[in-house]
Amino acid sequence: MKSRILSGMQPSGRLHLGNYMGALANWITLQDQYDGYFFVADWHALSTNYADTAHIQAFTRDMVIDWLSAGLDPDKATIFIQSQVPNHAVLHVLLSMITPIPWLERIPTYKEQQEQLEDRDLSTYGFLGYPILQSADVLIYNADFVPVGIDQAPHVELTRAIARRFNSLYTPVFKEPQTLLTETPKLPGTDGRKMSKSYNNAIYLSDPEDTVREKLRTMVTDPARKRRKDPGNPDVCPVYDLHKVYSGQPVLEQVNNECRTAEIGCIDCKKHLGDALVDRLQPIWERNRTIRETPTLVDEVVREGAKRAQTTSHVTMDSVRQAMGI
Amino acid sequence: MKSRILSGMQPSGRLHLGNYMGALANWITLQDQYDGYFFVADWHALSTNYADTAHIQAFTRDMVIDWLSAGLDPDKATIFIQSQVPNHAVLHVLLSMITPIPWLERIPTYKEQQEQLEDRDLSTYGFLGYPILQSADVLIYNADFVPVGIDQAPHVELTRAIARRFNSLYTPVFKEPQTLLTETPKLPGTDGRKMSKSYNNAIYLSDPEDTVREKLRTMVTDPARKRRKDPGNPDVCPVYDLHKVYSGQPVLEQVNNECRTAEIGCIDCKKHLGDALVDRLQPIWERNRTIRETPTLVDEVVREGAKRAQTTSHVTMDSVRQAMGI
Repeated sequence: MKSRILSGMQPSGRLHLGNYMGALANWITLQDQYDGYFFVADWHALSTNYADTAHIQAFTRDMVIDWLSAGLDPDKATIFIQSQVPNHAVLHVLLSMITPIPWLERIPTYKEQQEQLEDRDLSTYGFLGYPILQSADVLIYNADFVPVGIDQAPHVELTRAIARRFNSLYTPVFKEPQTLLTETPKLPGTDGRKMSKSYNNAIYLSDPEDTVREKLRTMVTDPARKRRKDPGNPDVCPVYDLHKVYSGQPVLEQVNNECRTAEIGCIDCKKHLGDALVDRLQPIWERNRTIRETPTLVDEVVREGAKRAQTTSHVTMDSVRQAMGI
Repeated sequence: MKSRILSGMQPSGRLHLGNYMGALANWITLQDQYDGYFFVADWHALSTNYADTAHIQAFTRDMVIDWLSAGLDPDKATIFIQSQVPNHAVLHVLLSMITPIPWLERIPTYKEQQEQLEDRDLSTYGFLGYPILQSADVLIYNADFVPVGIDQAPHVELTRAIARRFNSLYTPVFKEPQTLLTETPKLPGTDGRKMSKSYNNAIYLSDPEDTVREKLRTMVTDPARKRRKDPGNPDVCPVYDLHKVYSGQPVLEQVNNECRTAEIGCIDCKKHLGDALVDRLQPIWERNRTIRETPTLVDEVVREGAKRAQTTSHVTMDSVRQAMGI
């Protein structure tokens, strides 16, 4: 039997290359080897966005379309929406009873996010407790591994601590899930900063070829290379950072050398990058077209996913109820 | 259409006269006039008793038996167990996202209970948040009134505040429920202190007649009345406090007068009280016998109740999801 992995994403709408390389591409690799559970964490989105929920449903749908377009396969993995599996909320209530508040307060992201998102009132009970909801997300499927970035590692550690506490207070029900660390390559946006929806510097998986090439055309390069004949320095060029992710070794070496000697200009260098990106995105665009031709497909996928998730979660909940005597 | 009321009790096992007069007798009066929802708050029991859950299921069952014996009628009211209606947990998660932590910290019972139950670690997330779970219990049925004792009034106030916040953040979905204050008569136990399971001084609804009379026989009276011929003072006598609740006016006046003049002794005075109590408990005992003769009855009642509660709660949850865009 395959080991089980579980991971979720908050519904942020269309995914960009940063989201793709940071998590989704990894999920797609893992789905063959593991019994994968991948879900849209729409309740989690409320923890920071409760005051503005207008886009959650559309973002959820767009994100699932991107997941499927990128190659996440409902025949291999269980793809679902958190709010369609009520047992996440039930286990959350039960685990909240045994989780000390200091465990939550000392998670680094708690204070960090409150400081970063200072335009919002995050003094809410739900914001303090969302790591317990995450723990419920994982434990309800008794996942063996949780693929996450390094910033989420303390959350998996909390999940393990809650599992241990439950197992010792009652009877052993939960596995202690392991972190499966996702290496995230450095992925700059068109302005050279980290690619991010909120910086308006992102290239999206669903951008058509024209848009991708246009975004590259205006992308910042080595700021010291003002004229075509000036030699450039790829080490400080965001376009070269994307080359490192998407171009093969020969192109990489070519643009690296020819930029430093001014043999190649930024326009041609970006054309090479555009070609590599288009190669990578082509199959995603094709699957995207197919998916959009079948408007009911997304609903079918998440309905079927919720059904499977519900079935698995019921097995765990039966053990939980028996252990707790509820 | 009748107004709806909702109230719950934590599963404490067999009910004593204090529980009966404090809440249950009131529910039974209200069930004719209102659309009543009455539930066993087994998840709430975890907020203080998570470390010792061995008795929750048996206590739940015993309590429902006492409810039915006392005359709570499944044909008039919806009787159910909280943990059998998952929507309570779902709404709890959603409301937790919009509830500021300071609203919870300033509820008087929060610090009070932590001080009173100092043998337990109540620094848990669930203990802080149980008033949100109570709010979800009430709001999910859009109850008009919540019959509670005065100590629970701040919880209804929180429920109203959460309802207002939800309605103003999204669209109006929730009524602001009103407190229906339950007057609780002073009800001493056999040692003169407040009747309480933990003081081991309680007379239970399901105590047989012999036990009731025996408990009264050893009940403390006016401590200054040492001998039969000493005059007594009903104003300081716990037995007289019970007379005030259970005896009719003529007996009340008789024992009041004859105690002060030593015409009646404590044994006879208690016999009068025993007669009054037996009169009151007789129909409860009879219903109790019938219920115990049909072992499946309790399961049927709570299964049917959960079904009705689930149906009502789904209507509210649909509006909630639409309002929040989830």
